[in-house]
Amino acid sequence: MITGTTRLIAHIGFPTDSFRAPMIYNPWFDSRGIDAVVVPMGVRAQDYPATLCQLFTLTNLAGALITMPHKITTMDLVDEVTTTARVAGACNAVLRRPDGSLLGDMFDGAGFVRGVQRKGVALTGARVLVSGNGGVGCAIAASLAAAGVAELALYDVSAASSHALAVRLAEHYPDLAIETGSNDPAGFDLIVNASPLGMQASDPLPFDVSRIDPETFVGEVVMKETMTPLLKAAQAKGCGIQVGTDMLFEQIPAYLEFFGFGTATADELRKVARLPE
Amino acid sequence: MITGTTRLIAHIGFPTDSFRAPMIYNPWFDSRGIDAVVVPMGVRAQDYPATLCQLFTLTNLAGALITMPHKITTMDLVDEVTTTARVAGACNAVLRRPDGSLLGDMFDGAGFVRGVQRKGVALTGARVLVSGNGGVGCAIAASLAAAGVAELALYDVSAASSHALAVRLAEHYPDLAIETGSNDPAGFDLIVNASPLGMQASDPLPFDVSRIDPETFVGEVVMKETMTPLLKAAQAKGCGIQVGTDMLFEQIPAYLEFFGFGTATADELRKVARLPE
Repeated sequence: MITGTTRLIAHIGFPTDSFRAPMIYNPWFDSRGIDAVVVPMGVRAQDYPATLCQLFTLTNLAGALITMPHKITTMDLVDEVTTTARVAGACNAVLRRPDGSLLGDMFDGAGFVRGVQRKGVALTGARVLVSGNGGVGCAIAASLAAAGVAELALYDVSAASSHALAVRLAEHYPDLAIETGSNDPAGFDLIVNASPLGMQASDPLPFDVSRIDPETFVGEVVMKETMTPLLKAAQAKGCGIQVGTDMLFEQIPAYLEFFGFGTATADELRKVARLPE
Repeated sequence: MITGTTRLIAHIGFPTDSFRAPMIYNPWFDSRGIDAVVVPMGVRAQDYPATLCQLFTLTNLAGALITMPHKITTMDLVDEVTTTARVAGACNAVLRRPDGSLLGDMFDGAGFVRGVQRKGVALTGARVLVSGNGGVGCAIAASLAAAGVAELALYDVSAASSHALAVRLAEHYPDLAIETGSNDPAGFDLIVNASPLGMQASDPLPFDVSRIDPETFVGEVVMKETMTPLLKAAQAKGCGIQVGTDMLFEQIPAYLEFFGFGTATADELRKVARLPE
C-alpha cells in the first residue's frame, strides 16, 4: 500500500499505455513487504530533459526506469554512465546516488545475457551474431561484450547502425573480434534476433533457418507472441531457445539490485506478476 | 492496480511521512474500479515552483493535492484561483483543465462546512466565531462566507492575521458582518477551534467553556485525538460537535468532484480507508 514513506520509481516514457513494469515490480514489492512503487509517468520528448531533472528533486524518488522515446537522450542528462550504457548508446535506468549525482545504466542487454546464462549458454569466448542493431540490439551487444564473448558479428539493414555500434565496441573492448555486414547464422554459438522481424505476421524470418546449426542457441527479443516463427523453426531444428519475455523478466533482478531493493529471481517475479493476457 | 493507463494525482508536500491521503483515496479508487492513484511526492520549498510546473507536463497527471509548505505559494503558480482560494489565501488542489490551464482551489474549509451541514447546522444567516486565523482558519472562514453565514467573528493571537483575513472577506463578501479581536464564544450559532490549541496535552482550552451556550455547535480542527479536551467539555454542556477528522473526510468528496472522479460520501470513504491506528 502506498503511504507517505513509500519510495517512488518513476517509469518514464510516452505513450504509457503499454507499460508493463508496474504490473511486474509492484506485486513483487507487495509480496516482499518492500515500501516502494513503480509509477508510470507520461513524458513527451520536448518535456523530457527538464522533467527528468526536476523529478530527481523529489525527496522520495529512488530512481527512474526510462523507456521509449527517451533512452538515448538520457545519456546527456546524467552525471555518469556505465560502460554498458556507453556502448549501448542509451540508458534505461537512472539512479540518484547518495551525493545527489545521477548514474545512468542500461539493463535491456543484461536481461538477455542473464537469461541465456541461466539456460547454460557459456558466453566467455563465444561467437555471437546480433541481427538488428537498433536500441535493443546495441544493448544486447554491449552486455555480451561485458560478459566476455570473443566475437561479435553485427548485422542491420542500416549498415551505418552496425558500423557505429562496432566503433563503440572496439573502443571499450579492444580484444573483441567484430564483424559487420553478414546475417548468415552458420557457425555461431549464439544468434540473436534483435530486429523487429516477427512483430508482423507477414514478416520474413530474420535468419536463413536452413543455415542454423542445431548446436546454435537462438535468442529472440520480439515478445508479441511467446513462440515467434523464428523460435518455432529453431526449436524444430533442435536448437536451444530463449523467448522475448525472458529478457524482460531477467533484467528486473539487475534493476532491483541497481536501485538497492535486494535480489530476486526472474521466476519469483513471474510468479507474482499481474500482466494482462 | 497501477498500469500504464492509470491517471496520477500528485500529493505534493514536504515532508511526506505523515501523508494520509494515499491511504484514503487509493482504497476508494480500488473499491470503485477507478483507474487512478494518489502518489506522494516530497518537494522542498525551493524546488516547488519549477516542480509543480514540470509535473503538469506529465501526460497522465490528472491533478495535484497540495499540502504543507506549499499551499500559499501555489496561489501564484496557477492560471486561475477560485474565490474560496482567494479569500483563504491558499490552494490545496490544482486541476489541469482541458485547455491546459491550471485552476487552483481550496477544500480544507469545504470539508469543515460539508461536515457541519450534514450534522444539521444551518449556515445561511448564521453567526460564527473562527478562533485561529492561520491557514486552516482562513480556509474555513472562506467556505463559511461562501455558504452564506451572516456574521464572522475572527480571532487570532496575531491580530494582523485576523485583520488580513477580514480584508479579503470584505472584498469578496461586502454584505458579511465581520468582527475581529474577541475570542468570547457567547452568543454564536457555531464556534470553531482552528488554532493549534489541543495538539499538546498542556495546552489551555481555546475558548472560555463557561461562556459557550448549549445551543452553540462546536467544531474542532485538531485531529491528534478524536475527542479533544474542547470537544469533551462542549459535549458535557450539551453542544453539538464536529471532530477534526470529519473535516479531512468530508473534503474528499469535494476533491473527487473537482478532479472529475464522481461522487462519494465521507462515510463510504471512511469505510474503505486504511489509516494507521
